[in-house]
Amino acid sequence: MKFNKKLESMNTYETAKPIELVVREFGIESKDIMKLASNENPYGCSPKVQKSIVNIISCMALYPDDSMIKLKIALSNRFEIEVENIIIGSGSDQVIEFIMHSKANANSKILINSVTFAMYEIYAKHVGAEVIKTTSIEHNLEEFYTLYQDQNPDIIFLCTPNNPTGDALGSMELFSFLDKIDSDTLVVIDGAYMEYAQAKDNSKKVDPKLIVSKYENVIYLGTFSKAYGLGGMRVGYGVANENIIKELYKLRPPFNITTLSLEAASVALEDEEFVHKTSSLNFQEMDRYEDFALKQKINITNSYTNFVTFHLNQNQNSSKISYQLLSKGIIVRDLHSYDMNAIRVTVGTNKQNSKFFLAFKKLL
Amino acid sequence: MKFNKKLESMNTYETAKPIELVVREFGIESKDIMKLASNENPYGCSPKVQKSIVNIISCMALYPDDSMIKLKIALSNRFEIEVENIIIGSGSDQVIEFIMHSKANANSKILINSVTFAMYEIYAKHVGAEVIKTTSIEHNLEEFYTLYQDQNPDIIFLCTPNNPTGDALGSMELFSFLDKIDSDTLVVIDGAYMEYAQAKDNSKKVDPKLIVSKYENVIYLGTFSKAYGLGGMRVGYGVANENIIKELYKLRPPFNITTLSLEAASVALEDEEFVHKTSSLNFQEMDRYEDFALKQKINITNSYTNFVTFHLNQNQNSSKISYQLLSKGIIVRDLHSYDMNAIRVTVGTNKQNSKFFLAFKKLL
Repeated sequence: MKFNKKLESMNTYETAKPIELVVREFGIESKDIMKLASNENPYGCSPKVQKSIVNIISCMALYPDDSMIKLKIALSNRFEIEVENIIIGSGSDQVIEFIMHSKANANSKILINSVTFAMYEIYAKHVGAEVIKTTSIEHNLEEFYTLYQDQNPDIIFLCTPNNPTGDALGSMELFSFLDKIDSDTLVVIDGAYMEYAQAKDNSKKVDPKLIVSKYENVIYLGTFSKAYGLGGMRVGYGVANENIIKELYKLRPPFNITTLSLEAASVALEDEEFVHKTSSLNFQEMDRYEDFALKQKINITNSYTNFVTFHLNQNQNSSKISYQLLSKGIIVRDLHSYDMNAIRVTVGTNKQNSKFFLAFKKLL
Repeated sequence: MKFNKKLESMNTYETAKPIELVVREFGIESKDIMKLASNENPYGCSPKVQKSIVNIISCMALYPDDSMIKLKIALSNRFEIEVENIIIGSGSDQVIEFIMHSKANANSKILINSVTFAMYEIYAKHVGAEVIKTTSIEHNLEEFYTLYQDQNPDIIFLCTPNNPTGDALGSMELFSFLDKIDSDTLVVIDGAYMEYAQAKDNSKKVDPKLIVSKYENVIYLGTFSKAYGLGGMRVGYGVANENIIKELYKLRPPFNITTLSLEAASVALEDEEFVHKTSSLNFQEMDRYEDFALKQKINITNSYTNFVTFHLNQNQNSSKISYQLLSKGIIVRDLHSYDMNAIRVTVGTNKQNSKFFLAFKKLL
């Protein structure tokens, strides 16, 4: 059977090795496996969320409220915006998909950072758009601006803090950049790790309300998968000018969020204390990573997230080390596929991190 | 800001009115609202599923197992097929989306029944394909075959039992049709309500194993949203030849099913007794609908599902009656948007159905 030609060159996202497959391949019991590969919140989610889900467990049979009114109101209160400025996706990835299919096509160019979230490029391929990349590993807005002028892209993706490196843009610098972009170029600010960044340094905070009020061509993306501890529930969102949201809505499939996920995200927003407390623990533990890297003489990026990227030395091989850790039941992210001799490690709990340091040190 | 031109003519799926919006618009308390509009299982889901979800509630923070190995093995055991024959979607709708984007494009034709599940046409518009429809309201495979010969479509959708009418094809008749279709035309058999159909009449049963072993160009779709009582969890699946599945997989976004949904669907497959019991109750209650329709002199389609379609008489207006029911807190599906003066009503519990009969009768 013949399929569309574009499928021939299509890549799919390579997720971190699921625990279930490590159990099968290495015969390690699931309780002995430690996953520090997907930047989940190691403290789980708010206990209030767990309680609320148990309370509505009988609603699994009922289709989700497709108006998502409860979650939209919770988000609009949080950000002081209107519900018309919000679209909810199955993870912020799905909002990226809507963006790509609504604004880009086979004649488009998409401008992204050299090393960044892989889904931008994957979705660009879905529509056949050309992807232009910077050369700088950390976001360099001067280089972005030069490429913007030379290439005239339809969409620019800025990921701040950036995944998989952890660096973040200052909000002043970011707004100066946005001021220079023409109103027909859509700029996407992916703030998946923003809750962590603003906990560490308020000058990195990008306020969705400012985005909506100042720019008609910018969309801010957020997620419940990271700081809110709901990686398993698949809820992300886009915040933008009502006109952008209206267009994206045309591509949203019905019932794209589960009934339990809508409840979980809504209740998660009621417990900001949980996010503050666990972000604070995250940066306490991050200090230990910085000490470790210093002692082991490995460079790390100054991270505004809940992960650390180790840029390994020449005599250290990221794929080999990742595999050795895997065989011991420790899952980390090899960044070899990003053309980097580096590994990305989620900052876990105190105990998890100690276990990682011990195992990692032996392999250096 | 300019967006892709195709968005201008794009329709979105109109879901039944969510309970949450009825509460807001009519000031009716949520406990007094009865939704017989989305064909959810009125008996909920298996108690075993509820228990299993409570047990893994702390896993909400963890990204789903993207290999979905547990659910795939459960499905492969159920249907006696290989895991390579299976793709899981966020509802079977998402598998329809993968099918459309992999096989169809702006030069394609898609053949569907005149009245059928709305997502086929919506996704066809996403890729700019032309939609060819039969004239017959119930599936007429002779008409399908004539149109197939005349129009040479890339994809044919057969929905059996059909939504929103409830009629079902005999499997012998269906297989004879499939035998005549060339191997480059993809035929989709949407069996969302198949568990109900086979409970009523085994000659309507389409066995996914037969599809896989006999046809390299046919895909069977199933869902956990109906008989399994997991409408809120968004899990559907496609079963086909490995080559088709491989192509569809290229379009699957990572983590398209939540952690809790994967568990719920896997456990649901362990409790077939629940499906048998609730399907049996469904057809007991369906008898009451048939009696009611006979007494009220309204035509209904002989239904192999958990819903009944009332083809109203000329002096009865489906939109007016639906609205009047809504104002009393009873949500049904007006089929006016399908160009039919009809309403579709989910067969509820004994008590729900009695309440519906009482209210409906007053409006006739």
